[in-house]
Amino acid sequence: MILGQEPILLTPGPLTTSPATKQAMLRDWGSWDTQFNQITATLCRDLVDVVHGGNDYVCVPLQGSGTFSVEAAIGTLVPRDGKILVPQNGAYCQRILKICKYLGRAAVELAIPEDQIASPALIEEALKRDPSITHVAQVHLETGAGLLNPLPQIAEVCRRLGRGLIVDAMSSFGAIEIDVRSMPFDALVAASGKCIEGVPGMGFVIAKKSVLEASAGNSHSLAMDLHDQYAYMQKTTQWRFTPPTHVVAALRAALDQFKAEGGQPVRGARYRKNCKTLVDGMAALGFKPFLSPEVQAPVIVTFHAPTDPKYVFKAFYDAVRDKGYVLYPGKLTQIETFRVGCIGAIDDNEMRNVVTAVAQALDTLGVRQIAALTKAA
Amino acid sequence: MILGQEPILLTPGPLTTSPATKQAMLRDWGSWDTQFNQITATLCRDLVDVVHGGNDYVCVPLQGSGTFSVEAAIGTLVPRDGKILVPQNGAYCQRILKICKYLGRAAVELAIPEDQIASPALIEEALKRDPSITHVAQVHLETGAGLLNPLPQIAEVCRRLGRGLIVDAMSSFGAIEIDVRSMPFDALVAASGKCIEGVPGMGFVIAKKSVLEASAGNSHSLAMDLHDQYAYMQKTTQWRFTPPTHVVAALRAALDQFKAEGGQPVRGARYRKNCKTLVDGMAALGFKPFLSPEVQAPVIVTFHAPTDPKYVFKAFYDAVRDKGYVLYPGKLTQIETFRVGCIGAIDDNEMRNVVTAVAQALDTLGVRQIAALTKAA
Repeated sequence: MILGQEPILLTPGPLTTSPATKQAMLRDWGSWDTQFNQITATLCRDLVDVVHGGNDYVCVPLQGSGTFSVEAAIGTLVPRDGKILVPQNGAYCQRILKICKYLGRAAVELAIPEDQIASPALIEEALKRDPSITHVAQVHLETGAGLLNPLPQIAEVCRRLGRGLIVDAMSSFGAIEIDVRSMPFDALVAASGKCIEGVPGMGFVIAKKSVLEASAGNSHSLAMDLHDQYAYMQKTTQWRFTPPTHVVAALRAALDQFKAEGGQPVRGARYRKNCKTLVDGMAALGFKPFLSPEVQAPVIVTFHAPTDPKYVFKAFYDAVRDKGYVLYPGKLTQIETFRVGCIGAIDDNEMRNVVTAVAQALDTLGVRQIAALTKAA
Repeated sequence: MILGQEPILLTPGPLTTSPATKQAMLRDWGSWDTQFNQITATLCRDLVDVVHGGNDYVCVPLQGSGTFSVEAAIGTLVPRDGKILVPQNGAYCQRILKICKYLGRAAVELAIPEDQIASPALIEEALKRDPSITHVAQVHLETGAGLLNPLPQIAEVCRRLGRGLIVDAMSSFGAIEIDVRSMPFDALVAASGKCIEGVPGMGFVIAKKSVLEASAGNSHSLAMDLHDQYAYMQKTTQWRFTPPTHVVAALRAALDQFKAEGGQPVRGARYRKNCKTLVDGMAALGFKPFLSPEVQAPVIVTFHAPTDPKYVFKAFYDAVRDKGYVLYPGKLTQIETFRVGCIGAIDDNEMRNVVTAVAQALDTLGVRQIAALTKAA
């Protein structure tokens, strides 16, 4: 760790951003100013391009965290008498169910174990069983465990059965391939501070124009009415309420770097390399990922916590942090785990370094027993 | 204008922030990290201190623009069967009425001309006329025209008649004296990017602890449930959903500068000097403020647009912007106006310079007739 340098964030957003992204915030922008509104416009166009949305899709940015945009998408795009199927295999799926409850939207939970994908066959069965279900709300990459749900197949089921699809792509957008031409959806939600590597403070919804245009009057909230935000922006080029100008400018800078890097394919490859380096390095220390490789997304990895009685997450976290890396707590309810992110403006060299930092931290804490049947070196 | 330098924002937020405030954003913070959560905690304590809230009040920060926090305060703190009186003398009062409509909270509009204060006597009369009104939602400084409503007297009426008071202090907080000991309220709402001179991206609600604690289950929205945000923060020291970390760090830096400057009294005095310099300078050019001096707050000044047929706001705006100053359009529906902010990290020298820039812009555009009966020099 360079003395005085901030630690590297191995968390699923906020994450470590590049110097260029942060430096884009060293300027104040007027929210009424043409130059700023051009930034918003190009941002929206580029975000639609990431999923090949062409002219049928538009991007509506929204102030707040990603969850605000998820709630806005459900509240605006699902009619008040709609009914939502929520395939549930983790914390962010549960959050969608909570949102539906707040909003008074009828919801059906399709419970799935946290280490298994939302199976297209089960979803199809659930939709056929209940023809009154109008929409599926699908988390693409369930950050709770780090699992990738099979969006293309789920989208195909929804298309075939004529149900709307709202995708929470918070931690997959920009990292995992999403192509609306082959995996159609009504709306997809993501945020500034994830795999595009901006700073947190705004979300965005990429919505089918026809669906958005038909959604007037649905929203339960003025601030989160995407239809109103879109209509106002169309008319004025401006955000309805004060935009997080510096966050917007940082996202513009981050998107420029994303495009220069080679877009989603190249970013995804970098993250896959980060992930492999991490998993291999941790395996050598005796750590086992919670998920099997087929369903593990290269974004965040959940590891089983050491079984050694000397292990305490907080002390482990602090010891690794002292060496320059910020880990993330586990989010599973049944077993003790911790998580390590593979995303942000970092390469595989940092992943090798964090493994070294973990090894040293375990040594400092006297933690030797890692897995149930394995000893750490 | 220094070549290559960004223009000065004379807008009511976003505004021009100091270099130190912007530089605080050159670091990424983990949202789970103790150091970051300490920033949130000290921020909340200091914001309560600004209004002398002591131990009876708490501050709940919220992602999004200030309007998100206004909606959250109404949705969380006014019971679903509550009824809200909205004294209405401008655009931000109208926005509160719109929020009530979205939320299904009963609201009574007390219409007042845009150049006149919300009179405590009229409010008292309205409250006595309708005993079913449970709350008053009062905009303190109506940014639409720049008018200061008499908060101490309105708070006294509410206290005396036993009605709740929710204050939208978006553009007054930090600039105008607010002391909850002499002007009690249930909640007060403001945001990061206004008179504390942070960057936009979060709001906050300073609420009476007893009122907040009794508000579980009221909110129409998960993202905007202040009770849930507060309860989670109490338990974990963390924000419920990803905080706008860089915006939070900038607000911390801005608050440090606010305190070092001497807090609200000194900041208010600087803005008053800015305002007087502006109004005097513009008067010498023939410009007349829309409001009379007794109700004009030293935050943003609405001027009557020149009567000269050659005047077009957009061209005027662009010409002044070319000279380094960003003005703001008027927000009145009946008469043509424009607005000039007096707030941000600027002193009266900038206000003299903007007057010079305005004079030059008028000259460039050939605009001579300013007021109905006056000629510009």
